[in-house]
Amino acid sequence: MSKEETFQDLSLNLPSGKQQLWRWLYTELRGAILDGRLKPGARMPSTRSLAKQYSLSRGTVAVAFDQLQAEGYTRTEVGSGTYIASGVPEGLLPLTRKPVTPALPTSKAVFSRRAQEFLKGVEVTPASHAIGKAFRAYEAAIDLFPVDLWARVGSRVLRKAPRSLYGHGHAAGYQPLRRAIAEYVGASRGVHCSAEQIIVTSGVQQALTLAGHFLLGPGEQVWMEDPGYSGALQTLRATGASIVPVPVDNDGIIVKAGRKLAPNAKLAYVTPANQFPMGVTMSVDRRLELLRWAASANAWIIEDDYDGEYRYSGYPVAALQSLDKSGCVIYVGTFTKVLFNGLRLGFMILPERLVEPFTSARSLVDRHPPTLEQAILAEFITEGHFGHHIRRMRQNYAERNDILKIAANKHLSGLLDVEHAAAGIRTLGWLKTWKSDIEAALQARKLGLEVEPLSTFIVKYERPPALMLGFAGCNPAELRRGVSVLATALRSC
Amino acid sequence: MSKEETFQDLSLNLPSGKQQLWRWLYTELRGAILDGRLKPGARMPSTRSLAKQYSLSRGTVAVAFDQLQAEGYTRTEVGSGTYIASGVPEGLLPLTRKPVTPALPTSKAVFSRRAQEFLKGVEVTPASHAIGKAFRAYEAAIDLFPVDLWARVGSRVLRKAPRSLYGHGHAAGYQPLRRAIAEYVGASRGVHCSAEQIIVTSGVQQALTLAGHFLLGPGEQVWMEDPGYSGALQTLRATGASIVPVPVDNDGIIVKAGRKLAPNAKLAYVTPANQFPMGVTMSVDRRLELLRWAASANAWIIEDDYDGEYRYSGYPVAALQSLDKSGCVIYVGTFTKVLFNGLRLGFMILPERLVEPFTSARSLVDRHPPTLEQAILAEFITEGHFGHHIRRMRQNYAERNDILKIAANKHLSGLLDVEHAAAGIRTLGWLKTWKSDIEAALQARKLGLEVEPLSTFIVKYERPPALMLGFAGCNPAELRRGVSVLATALRSC
Repeated sequence: MSKEETFQDLSLNLPSGKQQLWRWLYTELRGAILDGRLKPGARMPSTRSLAKQYSLSRGTVAVAFDQLQAEGYTRTEVGSGTYIASGVPEGLLPLTRKPVTPALPTSKAVFSRRAQEFLKGVEVTPASHAIGKAFRAYEAAIDLFPVDLWARVGSRVLRKAPRSLYGHGHAAGYQPLRRAIAEYVGASRGVHCSAEQIIVTSGVQQALTLAGHFLLGPGEQVWMEDPGYSGALQTLRATGASIVPVPVDNDGIIVKAGRKLAPNAKLAYVTPANQFPMGVTMSVDRRLELLRWAASANAWIIEDDYDGEYRYSGYPVAALQSLDKSGCVIYVGTFTKVLFNGLRLGFMILPERLVEPFTSARSLVDRHPPTLEQAILAEFITEGHFGHHIRRMRQNYAERNDILKIAANKHLSGLLDVEHAAAGIRTLGWLKTWKSDIEAALQARKLGLEVEPLSTFIVKYERPPALMLGFAGCNPAELRRGVSVLATALRSC
Repeated sequence: MSKEETFQDLSLNLPSGKQQLWRWLYTELRGAILDGRLKPGARMPSTRSLAKQYSLSRGTVAVAFDQLQAEGYTRTEVGSGTYIASGVPEGLLPLTRKPVTPALPTSKAVFSRRAQEFLKGVEVTPASHAIGKAFRAYEAAIDLFPVDLWARVGSRVLRKAPRSLYGHGHAAGYQPLRRAIAEYVGASRGVHCSAEQIIVTSGVQQALTLAGHFLLGPGEQVWMEDPGYSGALQTLRATGASIVPVPVDNDGIIVKAGRKLAPNAKLAYVTPANQFPMGVTMSVDRRLELLRWAASANAWIIEDDYDGEYRYSGYPVAALQSLDKSGCVIYVGTFTKVLFNGLRLGFMILPERLVEPFTSARSLVDRHPPTLEQAILAEFITEGHFGHHIRRMRQNYAERNDILKIAANKHLSGLLDVEHAAAGIRTLGWLKTWKSDIEAALQARKLGLEVEPLSTFIVKYERPPALMLGFAGCNPAELRRGVSVLATALRSC
């Protein structure tokens, strides 16, 4: 068999033009070795013949050979030539000829049982290609966000950033941002804290993941508001906690019910400023009752203050944290709901004794938040743009809240009784003709609307059928269009 | 008692000037209610008298009253005035007079036992205020990073970014970045994958956290290279896995030993391109042996390819993933080691059947990576700056590698036998006169050097004493200074 014939037998794929030639040759020869076209102990074709057959420079072939050698596919015997290494098991793991093939899932390795259970019912929020759609409830007004201002502040921060900002950052977050947050929550939410008590997170979910892992043992009980925020429920359940749904009334979570159901729960997750999804504010009695229970049960409280800034009557209610003198409240906030979703920055405010362990935990989970992005946000806050934006949005959202209410009164009367939101970026509409909010939501979705049935947020304590409608993220025209489409959808009952 | 006297009894703190006046008054009155200076059922002082006594406008007082009312601290009886609500328990949770006080840790709530165990030995890497210090091993060359270029690309991306980038992003990452990564790892590391198999993460730690939770049940066994990367060990242990240290030789992890110790382990964590910290490359035999074991044991393999780009002899070794035809390898990469630490972006390349569940898991853990930062990185890669930077750094790091070796030969002879790194950003030096590398490292640290003892990375299989020395992040002068200081430190034995 001549050398030429040997080469035809190898039937290498021709180079695609996108790869460097040496890498192509290396990949092809390696494939030939692994699938047995070149057998262990056999002599490698010479660089000269390969170069000739595939119109390569001998240098290119030599580089491919060096690489095969370096990775142990071949060995060179001085004065004798290059051979296929004998350790390579012939045809053991046959490679298909085309290098870029879909993975062949022949592995029978499985997920952990907890994963299979936890992932049940987790719905991934899709990327928002079209912003401002009616009635998206998880997004602030992207149409009104001052993107030019953000770009200007961002460019300036990037230009000025000292090299040290490119190095390893502090696990708890960029110090100037922590200071800016402490000042802001002190002034606007009555939260008492120093910058040292703040850990910058990638949002509420990360805060809950950390808290779930580091405050709860497997199977320990957690009070969750019912109805409540499903994202929090799924995240805490995924950390191994046992969820205890606790009913909610007009004063917020019913602490008495919680005491009865699970007096020794280790954690309570609450949304005191604007209960998700009912929109009620936790009364001061309930706040004190909850704190009293936590103190007596040695339990922790997570206060999720995701959009307490937006209150349409009166002023933002002071945080539960501001009443806590026993150090059991973990205050969790986020910038995604007040600025924009693409920014993955939030924060937790911790009782002092939790600061060090949570900083370690955060470091373990993902080291630290991205520094340049934190620096941009810090500048945005300290220059006053953040406060200005919130004041501007409060007015705009109040207007959108009114527009939704007025349009609903006009076009949805007898179909959907839409509440005028007291706070936040969404409200509830009570269905008048549909028995199942899931089916009503499905009907609305068929017509392109984004609505969530209230049932989605209920674990145990049933409610009349209702739809959750976001209003803050939609411009007036889209709100009115949405109402008219919704009327069509609901009339088809 | 006249109204004036009532007010003197309340002894409100005077406004500090930093708060809005209404908020100051509200906070003070709330404090007076909560600590019993104003008793349940008692009549509130009139707005007029309060306004007069504290030189406030009556509007300011009215706002503070509204807020107290909204939060349930007071109730108004028509025609009769405002009263302290009877539900407020008198003096139950006494507030100290000064609003900003340190938290009083009287809560006896405790950490979970797993947290107490997991956090043992976790050392938080401090923020790098001074970049480029000898012999920092976890940081790329910040002194050579093209910060102006990054700022320019960043500014352009921010200016051009469509509004939709400010909305909710895809849980698996920004599509153009996923495409850029797929192309890059295909060309440079021989990894076969489509953009759809890539999940952008906040770095290796997050990838390991996800994998640990979703592939491992509590107590299931994991092979870890010993010595090995302690960050991976701590993270996987924190997810509840049982760690099985497996010894390493010059061909990488000793698969036979692993099979003997834990034949049914569910996962193996390996660093094939550049074993951490020994610096060896896993041989092709071992790679195939490892894949064969994983296929037969239905186990997963995590390939951590944290700095495979930097190889000083030959070309980067192809990834283990490129040999995997059974779909059991999860390839993990990061941009922090090749660009800069402050950028918190990495990625995992998943077998197809893991893509959907891991996307859900990622969404649960922290929704999605920051969009604008991803867009900047995508542009940096597709414009060719990334490839250029790596090529430039490979030269620079090779030079720094040589400088360290030459300086060490000259000044550390008889004290420390420094290896010439074959790859990566750090190397090992074998101690000649010290018995304990921990004590030697301590001595070096006293003189301001950053060195890690090899022992830190050993769980079970002892090695002669050695120090880990980073060279890539230090400029030549600092490297030479470091060697001379290290000589002084080691001579003090």
